Amino acid sequence: MNDSKNSDQVDRIDQQLHFLLEIDRLKSVERRTLIADGSRHENSAEHSWHLAMMALLFAGSRSSGEIDRLKVLMMLLVHDIVEVDAGDTFCYDVEATQDQEEREQRAADRLFGLLPADQGQELKSAWREFEDQATPEALLANALDRLQPLLMNCSTEGHSWKKHRIRRQQVVQRMMPIREGLPDLWSRVEARLDEAVDRGWLLP
Amino acid sequence: MNDSKNSDQVDRIDQQLHFLLEIDRLKSVERRTLIADGSRHENSAEHSWHLAMMALLFAGSRSSGEIDRLKVLMMLLVHDIVEVDAGDTFCYDVEATQDQEEREQRAADRLFGLLPADQGQELKSAWREFEDQATPEALLANALDRLQPLLMNCSTEGHSWKKHRIRRQQVVQRMMPIREGLPDLWSRVEARLDEAVDRGWLLP
Repeated sequence: MNDSKNSDQVDRIDQQLHFLLEIDRLKSVERRTLIADGSRHENSAEHSWHLAMMALLFAGSRSSGEIDRLKVLMMLLVHDIVEVDAGDTFCYDVEATQDQEEREQRAADRLFGLLPADQGQELKSAWREFEDQATPEALLANALDRLQPLLMNCSTEGHSWKKHRIRRQQVVQRMMPIREGLPDLWSRVEARLDEAVDRGWLLP
Repeated sequence: MNDSKNSDQVDRIDQQLHFLLEIDRLKSVERRTLIADGSRHENSAEHSWHLAMMALLFAGSRSSGEIDRLKVLMMLLVHDIVEVDAGDTFCYDVEATQDQEEREQRAADRLFGLLPADQGQELKSAWREFEDQATPEALLANALDRLQPLLMNCSTEGHSWKKHRIRRQQVVQRMMPIREGLPDLWSRVEARLDEAVDRGWLLP
């Protein structure tokens, strides 16, 4: 009995450690945005950390209780893990976004499937909840995921906007979840976009 | 009245966005360990993300309630932020660790001081709790912070151990928090160190 329990425990730990090594590859998934000092492209792992920090600031205080902060954090920590298999899809690339959902579903099945069933299910549910955008936590997490690259673009003179000749209206469209999920920040977003157009970082 | 409330809100958002840009520099703080594929050094921002993922697996399930998982996550997300000012201190460098505490306290005062007072206090408390190692959550967070570089070293043929001629006993000493905080994993740690010595990645 005890031996069999120990061996289950060992299998469980093996699965967890294997998963942790697999997702290490998220550190090598390059995004289109640069880090704030402009020195190199950002990767999806450090981007996820930055988002989690944003959640600590914008998902209310520990005691507010309106938003399940732990859920927001979990969603942001796992939301890009599928990129380990599926790669980062540039949000303004219409062609690439067409089969994105299918590629990412396959990736979620494989990656979260490496874990003990209960944990795989928990993390996959968090990923699914983020994708479905049907809960207040998912809406807020999504708003943060839109705001973060805006901050990076503004501090790198619109690097990826200029490079891909993006128009203000495309960014406004992309930023709409912020108006919904973080309404207090919307006037800031608009002001930053106006400034970006004035400076030639973004097409009018 | 309303104008003054709006302007407080604006100041608050400015402070939060400023803080988020400052901590972006954690993405440029290089650690001694390589990422798992050995292609480059790991930075402290992506390391923090990896730790937060470990916390989701090893800090019990959402429903267990024994450990405050949100607290563990918060500690791991913020625990390295002081390195933005203080740099990463190599754990086996005895000289550098001597003034580490003072440098990191100054960094914490400055960085968390950029935030609105309530939030600065909350994040600084999480950092302090991690440093003080007096709660079950802090012990667990610390154990994870020790385990992660072990995993990275094992998957890069002991890169930083070999480079700095580290002995098994030094690593055992460093890994002791795992025996305390994650006792189920201790036999794995010992087995990995034995293997590392056998393969010549670590001095006996």
